[in-house]
Amino acid sequence: MKDIDQEALKLHKKFQGKLATIPLVQVKNKHDLSLVYTPGVAEPSRQIAKNKSLAYDLTWRGRTVAVISNGSAVLGLGNIGAEAALPVMEGKALLLKTLGGIDAVPVVINTQDADEIIKFVKLIAPTFSGILLEDIAAPICFQVEDALQNIGIPVFHDDQHGTAIVCTAALKNAAKVVGKKYEDLHVVIVGAGAAGLATAKMLLGYSCTIDSCRKIQGQKSVDDLIVVDKIGAITIGRNNQNIYKQQIAGFSNKKNQQGELAKIIKDADAVIGLSGPDLITKAMVRSMNKNAIIIAMANPIPEIMPEEALAAGAAIVATGRSDFPNQVNNSLAFPGIFRAVVRGRLTKITQEMKNAASDALATYIKNPTLTNIVPDMFAPDLSEHIANKLLAIRKA
Amino acid sequence: MKDIDQEALKLHKKFQGKLATIPLVQVKNKHDLSLVYTPGVAEPSRQIAKNKSLAYDLTWRGRTVAVISNGSAVLGLGNIGAEAALPVMEGKALLLKTLGGIDAVPVVINTQDADEIIKFVKLIAPTFSGILLEDIAAPICFQVEDALQNIGIPVFHDDQHGTAIVCTAALKNAAKVVGKKYEDLHVVIVGAGAAGLATAKMLLGYSCTIDSCRKIQGQKSVDDLIVVDKIGAITIGRNNQNIYKQQIAGFSNKKNQQGELAKIIKDADAVIGLSGPDLITKAMVRSMNKNAIIIAMANPIPEIMPEEALAAGAAIVATGRSDFPNQVNNSLAFPGIFRAVVRGRLTKITQEMKNAASDALATYIKNPTLTNIVPDMFAPDLSEHIANKLLAIRKA
Repeated sequence: MKDIDQEALKLHKKFQGKLATIPLVQVKNKHDLSLVYTPGVAEPSRQIAKNKSLAYDLTWRGRTVAVISNGSAVLGLGNIGAEAALPVMEGKALLLKTLGGIDAVPVVINTQDADEIIKFVKLIAPTFSGILLEDIAAPICFQVEDALQNIGIPVFHDDQHGTAIVCTAALKNAAKVVGKKYEDLHVVIVGAGAAGLATAKMLLGYSCTIDSCRKIQGQKSVDDLIVVDKIGAITIGRNNQNIYKQQIAGFSNKKNQQGELAKIIKDADAVIGLSGPDLITKAMVRSMNKNAIIIAMANPIPEIMPEEALAAGAAIVATGRSDFPNQVNNSLAFPGIFRAVVRGRLTKITQEMKNAASDALATYIKNPTLTNIVPDMFAPDLSEHIANKLLAIRKA
Repeated sequence: MKDIDQEALKLHKKFQGKLATIPLVQVKNKHDLSLVYTPGVAEPSRQIAKNKSLAYDLTWRGRTVAVISNGSAVLGLGNIGAEAALPVMEGKALLLKTLGGIDAVPVVINTQDADEIIKFVKLIAPTFSGILLEDIAAPICFQVEDALQNIGIPVFHDDQHGTAIVCTAALKNAAKVVGKKYEDLHVVIVGAGAAGLATAKMLLGYSCTIDSCRKIQGQKSVDDLIVVDKIGAITIGRNNQNIYKQQIAGFSNKKNQQGELAKIIKDADAVIGLSGPDLITKAMVRSMNKNAIIIAMANPIPEIMPEEALAAGAAIVATGRSDFPNQVNNSLAFPGIFRAVVRGRLTKITQEMKNAASDALATYIKNPTLTNIVPDMFAPDLSEHIANKLLAIRKA
């Protein structure tokens, strides 16, 4: 076992996880009790019964979100189930508090069925200000999120939109550093799961439901983008692609290129890996355009190691890892986004808000450099900065 | 608005509820992050994937329970819905921490359907060590709890069993104080909802599912008990009684008495009110046996006020209120019971364990008196005492 694994295991044993609940009010005698519990608690309940929105003022609902997963697509570990996903969800809940300043509860559920997940989230919604869905496998994640857009509180699937937001911000700053225009980039995305498809849509400036896509107005977007899965380039009319891949085929890969990654990556300005370890070779990087940008997100082993990519001529390399420069990690975005959810009592997170969060992340860095295209996630005002920019969209 | 209501409302506004989540681990830099989150968190996840029971050691599951309600029978407020129930559930979660030393999360769900509640609890079970069901109306609470007895973690409906446990303990000590033998008491229960029926079963020494009842062996029980609802005494063959009332009719009211409370209460040694305000009159108390015991649990306005009951000749009066002697409240029991659930990693709470908890509560008081038949819920070792006695049953 590696040192870091050993140390992490020890820490988790010591604290029995890493999150706890804590009373905000001391209850030491019967008078205290009469305020937090019967008979006093009846008055907040009566007030909320008359006006449900008061639950945001009089209970933890107004500052608390849930991190919900069924454990079907956890880190690089795959479908490991509800119990085994709990350490990750507890970690995300902890980060929401530490980085975003809001309360969060990890919830793991024992199902692989989209309808059951949908029903579950609808039932639990009155307890929280928002729901962060995590590590739910494609393609059911699309169906689940689609069905939960009008339940009164925001439901945000981080694997899709969190990843899209941080990758888009990283790509914009990387383009700036290498002196290319973002809109002119020729981009290849490796991986057509939740993260790959969502990132493709965001870069292309689209917001999609299962039924339809709309082009976001007034938003800079790339035009030349191809998504590649295990079979090859996603393109109109290809066999073996699910409806979500067919949807993206409709507005990506405009020259209908076909073939495997090694062929498709040729002359690309940027490649974003949202797939698995070691899928990008040095030869592929060498075939890319000059000043190539590599964002290799597979974790813990990226699609290509930074030193290899740089040796093959890449100008900028980013990964999800903390031990290399340019750590592009969802933790940069979701704490600020849910800070906005709580502070703004949002009922949904629109595509325009997601774009605003991504722009906020990119512009947080005044002068990006080869090794500094995204902020440090511990930058003390980062989540506040993102929340402010996101909420400004609502007022606009 | 009363002073206490005003003060409670102010407190709930000030803290936006009364419970928060808190990290047990400081995360200040990338190394810290690599332990609680990726890549380190993968190791606890891998361990749990191999052996699910390790979730109790490596996540908050091993010390955390959920307090779940659909808000269909809240305090004296009735079916006020999920949002309005949240202050009460947050209060119970707070008490689990303050009095029981365990972490707890309030969860309110938006449904009135038994099957949906059952499905919901099954789905969320992997997140917690146990589930405290609260304020779910009869009769669906019976169906819900029945269906959840074999899901791997204990599901305990407090309105039923918590109430039964504290009332039984109070009655045993009250009998001792007035010099009557517990087993010989003639008891009338007013109210045939969740609490009334569960208390009747416990006093009579029975444990029931929807399908069948079993007599608990080796447990002292009363023999002469009648449950009265709005219509009158529950008895075999009466019209207008649901299957749960028919079930209790089968082993209570052995002389098949019929009629309203005013008639039935005559010559009773004890009456336990689990119904609503002002249902017991002074005349009724005068018609009871000498040294009558009155446990009037309706909250905040009991079935009869203590001063009236005493004026009418009662020897002992208990209520659910903190401003009178003998406060019989579920908070005496559930913190200790769930402390046992967490410490013992119980998979269910058997009737024998419930009896042990009740006995532990009664015998905690060495010398009960007229105004001291149950412990103070702030007695510092009470939950530990109950947990120990309950867990001793398991080992036996």
